[in-house]
Amino acid sequence: MVRWEPDAQGRLRLAAVALFAENGYEQTTVAQIAARAGVTERTFFRYFADKREVLFPGGHDLETFLAGHVAAAPPSATPLTAIAGALEAAAAAFFTAEHQVMSRQRHLVISSSPDLQERELLKLASFAAAFAAALRERGVSEPGASLVAESGVAVFKTAFARWVADDARQGLAGIIEETLAELKAVVCAS
Amino acid sequence: MVRWEPDAQGRLRLAAVALFAENGYEQTTVAQIAARAGVTERTFFRYFADKREVLFPGGHDLETFLAGHVAAAPPSATPLTAIAGALEAAAAAFFTAEHQVMSRQRHLVISSSPDLQERELLKLASFAAAFAAALRERGVSEPGASLVAESGVAVFKTAFARWVADDARQGLAGIIEETLAELKAVVCAS
Repeated sequence: MVRWEPDAQGRLRLAAVALFAENGYEQTTVAQIAARAGVTERTFFRYFADKREVLFPGGHDLETFLAGHVAAAPPSATPLTAIAGALEAAAAAFFTAEHQVMSRQRHLVISSSPDLQERELLKLASFAAAFAAALRERGVSEPGASLVAESGVAVFKTAFARWVADDARQGLAGIIEETLAELKAVVCAS
Repeated sequence: MVRWEPDAQGRLRLAAVALFAENGYEQTTVAQIAARAGVTERTFFRYFADKREVLFPGGHDLETFLAGHVAAAPPSATPLTAIAGALEAAAAAFFTAEHQVMSRQRHLVISSSPDLQERELLKLASFAAAFAAALRERGVSEPGASLVAESGVAVFKTAFARWVADDARQGLAGIIEETLAELKAVVCAS
């Protein structure tokens, strides 16, 4: 059998997002996801605790990546510049053009369910907490560290929504940069 | 019987938050909440769909209040100033010194449970969406409207956490004003 994706976990994610987009999140069963991915249900549960978690993998990896980039920013970087650098690095590493279709499907599925939105918001809140902790390590005091961390996550969320809606005209890193300039324009004008 | 609170709904909220703080959210039953409030379980379910909802009442009222204040801000107000005014008005109307102990207990209960945190984040996200819609009505374009709305909610969240931790030395409106100045300092320095 020729595998069209390197790993069972990746196949399960793609299968799940495609089935959710086709038939709805509520209507899709783990059995259907496993069948489409060509694995057993038992294999599904080796990777994911439940149907919801298949939409939220690797959150911890991304969080570690983001916090690590903030920590590694040059000492001269301002808090917002350090966060912007981390977000743009994540865009280049995790959200390239080839991820865009799947990211869009996932975004639509999550938008369709308050339960999934809550889970997504919790993930974003944990990114903000990780950013704030990394900034405090750099000597940024509170509440400034938390505020700039939350603003950075707002930039990411807004830029991500534009990216998945955009038919890949522009890369996510460029949209993040533009969105950041927009944040500064609107906050600093006041 | 002398009622120590004007309404059953308010008594149920106070009873629930006190029991959650004493015994833990998971360990507390609706029957216990109703008994402490001096009403039947049936009365509980007349006001709240389930145990979780008793912690999240009036969210829609507050959302309408906030959006209404943004809409009513003077035409010269910048987006951030309009949001700041709405938050400070909400502080004065909903979060006075006498609400502080209950707000603190509620805050601690929510912090103890990812499920409750998710619900709280969804409520805050709906405030951000209401702010963004009210700003678009004022002619603010996207993504600026969403970004400043999210930043305003970040200010509220951060200020609220400081307020409940603060033993009421300072009113919430004053903390919001300080937190807003901090946001501008850290975003605009970059």
